[in-house]
Amino acid sequence: MATLFSKIVSGEVPCHKVWEDDAHLAFLDIRPMARGHTLVIPKEAKAQLHELSDESAAALGRALPRICRAVKQVTGCAGYNVLQNNGSSAHQEVMHVHFHIIPKSQSDGLDMQWSPGSLDTDDGAALAAALREVMDE
Amino acid sequence: MATLFSKIVSGEVPCHKVWEDDAHLAFLDIRPMARGHTLVIPKEAKAQLHELSDESAAALGRALPRICRAVKQVTGCAGYNVLQNNGSSAHQEVMHVHFHIIPKSQSDGLDMQWSPGSLDTDDGAALAAALREVMDE
Repeated sequence: MATLFSKIVSGEVPCHKVWEDDAHLAFLDIRPMARGHTLVIPKEAKAQLHELSDESAAALGRALPRICRAVKQVTGCAGYNVLQNNGSSAHQEVMHVHFHIIPKSQSDGLDMQWSPGSLDTDDGAALAAALREVMDE
Repeated sequence: MATLFSKIVSGEVPCHKVWEDDAHLAFLDIRPMARGHTLVIPKEAKAQLHELSDESAAALGRALPRICRAVKQVTGCAGYNVLQNNGSSAHQEVMHVHFHIIPKSQSDGLDMQWSPGSLDTDDGAALAAALREVMDE
């Protein structure tokens, strides 16, 4: 199923392009949370980050600092958030992997409620062991 | 200046380790926003993402989907957010690059206020041109 981002990749829908290589594209979000809000996507049409190939994920990772430097230089932002949402419960709207780079100032950018709990030591040990086991598979 | 994460990397401060390679480390956040909240860091002590080397950023990018798969499998979360904050204005607390992987459910996870504006076409064109120029340098 073609998403908006597949149509941007194919050129069917225009965008304000920031950067492109064979497998990746960065462009301005048309619904920006702040001036300079940029999206970075793989051309590979995967919905969520855990589905992305190692190769594509590595190339995306390599591009991010460079694009962040450009956004920082051009907008003069003091801080910025990099955000990547997976699943509609987690605020994903377009079902094609995308990293948001969102400049942060007092008046705009990403507002978050940060209300953490506390890690129980026993549960933490069990959880980390379960995660390590999956990572070792 | 040694941050908490440098001390975790050196082993001076313990952690619930999820994954490690020569240059990167993943461990449970001790102040989790949800069960399974995991941090992924480069061992390279850089404060913000735009300062990270291409090599380290690529390796971090490559690791993220694999760790997301493990978090999803072990916690059974429907969705998750990947968040990386830069600067105290943008909610960064430890001044060492870190990606949060935060499982999202109705009762916990990351809560965001998403109130976007609209991209002005002329400003978008000018901004994208300025960003492309920096990216081409």
